[in-house]
Amino acid sequence: MSSVPVTPWRLAARTARMNPSAIREILKLTERPGILSLAGGLPSADTFPVEAVREAASRVLREAPREALQYAASEGFAPLREWVAEQMARQGVAASAAHVLITTGSQQGLDLVGKVLIDSGSTVAVESPTYLGALQAFVAYEPAFVAVEGDEGGPLPQALARAAGARFLYALPNFQNPSGRTIDADRRAELARAAEAVGVPIVEDNPYGDLWYDAPPPAPIASHWRAGTVYLGSFSKVLAPGLRLGYLVAPPAIFAKLVQAKQAADLHTPGFNQRIVHEIVRGGFLDAHVPTIRARYRVQRDAMAAALRAHLPSEGELACRWRMPGGGMFFWVELPESVDSEALLAKAIERGVAFVPGAPFFAGAPRRNTMRLSFVTLGAEAIERGVAAIAAALRDLRQDEGARPLAAAGRAARR
Amino acid sequence: MSSVPVTPWRLAARTARMNPSAIREILKLTERPGILSLAGGLPSADTFPVEAVREAASRVLREAPREALQYAASEGFAPLREWVAEQMARQGVAASAAHVLITTGSQQGLDLVGKVLIDSGSTVAVESPTYLGALQAFVAYEPAFVAVEGDEGGPLPQALARAAGARFLYALPNFQNPSGRTIDADRRAELARAAEAVGVPIVEDNPYGDLWYDAPPPAPIASHWRAGTVYLGSFSKVLAPGLRLGYLVAPPAIFAKLVQAKQAADLHTPGFNQRIVHEIVRGGFLDAHVPTIRARYRVQRDAMAAALRAHLPSEGELACRWRMPGGGMFFWVELPESVDSEALLAKAIERGVAFVPGAPFFAGAPRRNTMRLSFVTLGAEAIERGVAAIAAALRDLRQDEGARPLAAAGRAARR
Repeated sequence: MSSVPVTPWRLAARTARMNPSAIREILKLTERPGILSLAGGLPSADTFPVEAVREAASRVLREAPREALQYAASEGFAPLREWVAEQMARQGVAASAAHVLITTGSQQGLDLVGKVLIDSGSTVAVESPTYLGALQAFVAYEPAFVAVEGDEGGPLPQALARAAGARFLYALPNFQNPSGRTIDADRRAELARAAEAVGVPIVEDNPYGDLWYDAPPPAPIASHWRAGTVYLGSFSKVLAPGLRLGYLVAPPAIFAKLVQAKQAADLHTPGFNQRIVHEIVRGGFLDAHVPTIRARYRVQRDAMAAALRAHLPSEGELACRWRMPGGGMFFWVELPESVDSEALLAKAIERGVAFVPGAPFFAGAPRRNTMRLSFVTLGAEAIERGVAAIAAALRDLRQDEGARPLAAAGRAARR
Repeated sequence: MSSVPVTPWRLAARTARMNPSAIREILKLTERPGILSLAGGLPSADTFPVEAVREAASRVLREAPREALQYAASEGFAPLREWVAEQMARQGVAASAAHVLITTGSQQGLDLVGKVLIDSGSTVAVESPTYLGALQAFVAYEPAFVAVEGDEGGPLPQALARAAGARFLYALPNFQNPSGRTIDADRRAELARAAEAVGVPIVEDNPYGDLWYDAPPPAPIASHWRAGTVYLGSFSKVLAPGLRLGYLVAPPAIFAKLVQAKQAADLHTPGFNQRIVHEIVRGGFLDAHVPTIRARYRVQRDAMAAALRAHLPSEGELACRWRMPGGGMFFWVELPESVDSEALLAKAIERGVAFVPGAPFFAGAPRRNTMRLSFVTLGAEAIERGVAAIAAALRDLRQDEGARPLAAAGRAARR
């Protein structure tokens, strides 16, 4: 007698498309001692303003402990919302604090936008490649993705016509994750005009805008089309991700529904964290702090560029292509067409280094010969060793490929 | 020439069912100076362990600042997950830390459960009345609700047959919000058996279990049917809600999908908060702290019971009914059938006191002659004044109703 295991659970259809993040799975590999990780987008912990957090936490618990530890408004802590509105104004985006929503990291902003705007089967337009975490947030609401054709300057405005009917275009204009590219001022204006013409609003995600190393990025797309853009920001890269604090700025037409979605999702973002961050930023702390982060990452970016030049082939059959990112956290490397970066990763892990293969960043057909390298987690010297190890892994892989026909012949003969 | 305002935004169909929380709207009223609020389920800020939070925050920032402020695992901080698993074992629920997920408040647990288990049009079984916040979380996934028939002891096991096919039964067995009722040990076992027999799993929500004033509640439903129950817990009532920390314990069959939903929702719950709470609870702090909360709320509960006895009519045409809750935060009062508690609220606000009308707590046809009174936010003396004011408002309302026929006749004559 055998008994069939019976489960009472029936999963929602959407869960078939929800899968573990490829990046999270790779990050587990990187926990092995001795692995150099160019994989995660983990900010360097050396940049965390521990002393400022300590002082702010003390002050909040001394001056407003009851308020900081109590239930609070779903919209967020009013003075922090005011601060965000002021920052938006500095970037040329007129926004009232009344339309700022504090979120539990900007990832939550993506989830709320998906919940409020996506119906099962509706279309969402994305860049190609695009941020994996956004795809993960949206996929739970069962959209069909359409990848908007782009070039090295970002999505092509004329390509937006084919996205007509989409609930929104998701765009990451500054130092995009994963590609590192930035959309220039003219293209932003053109994109806003083209989107307005076809009636496709824009979800503009800006986690990296403050991390520029050559020149500050242009004004947000939201400055060109305020009524048609939801703007997402984050404190994760300029303060610390472990506080999980982000925000969104939405047009009045959808703000109330976003707040209701927020309320249903987690009532409100921790008031303690909001007050700590407000306490830190209100006196202008970031004006002095962010340049120190930029200085550190600029050195690391330059070290990675030098290492890529020194170690990766730039011509011949193994020629690789990459561009210098003007900010952010990542280099995006195009390997030879014949190289699958997942196979390369396996070889790289053997040599003690990890990176993220490019395929998961594509909503449509992936370009498997791409990889993302982070320069923010490790220092310059480790970056140099890591890139050298990847170059060696590329040679290993090629050697294996050369050997494979023989091995395959051997297996065939044995059959 | 007039121009029609055009918006590019198209809201998802689910947003039609997402509405501002009636409670949140009432809470805004209670911000008026001088209003006595029996409305919100706000824990008394006097119970917040401010000193313990201060010490824990200092220690975390001294001993593990880089880890606390960095990105972290979606599942949660491992030692806190271990602690939760130990607490579950103490309650008779065998659970590995591997199946504990730390959430951004237990409200997030409800959202994740909805995301993973509810398809548009699928059925969710609920108690009647039930927790409003759960309805709000689930409604975003567009279920049809079926209210399970119950009595003063909770849902009736034999009524579960009519919920066959439901994705789950949502139950709040301890000192339910809003009704205050507790399901006894026998009924829990019967419910688990009946649910298993009809193949309907259970989502067991337990925010109030530690707040018992007469006797500790029976073991969770999860202890009777581990494989068929997701259990939700919270630190909001025993420590502080402003930290937004809860957890869920799920069977292996659905745990991985819940983690993926969590990752998509906010990557992870703030590591800083998780470490602070772990630092506080790991040495047994709650064993000494929670009894002080119980002692305070017991006095307030008894004060509200005395005030209800003293001020609300128990016989005659205005007779009201209520039961003594054995724990939690709320009295549930049944007004005379003819009284709509929303009309009573308007009168009560005029007399400087607020409460929550019962209608929003019903997934199906609401019983409008019900109201929820919280005894945790105000002290005994204010509770007494608040209840007296509600009783006066009830008399006001009756006086108006007596006057209305005349007024209505007047209006009719004027037409």
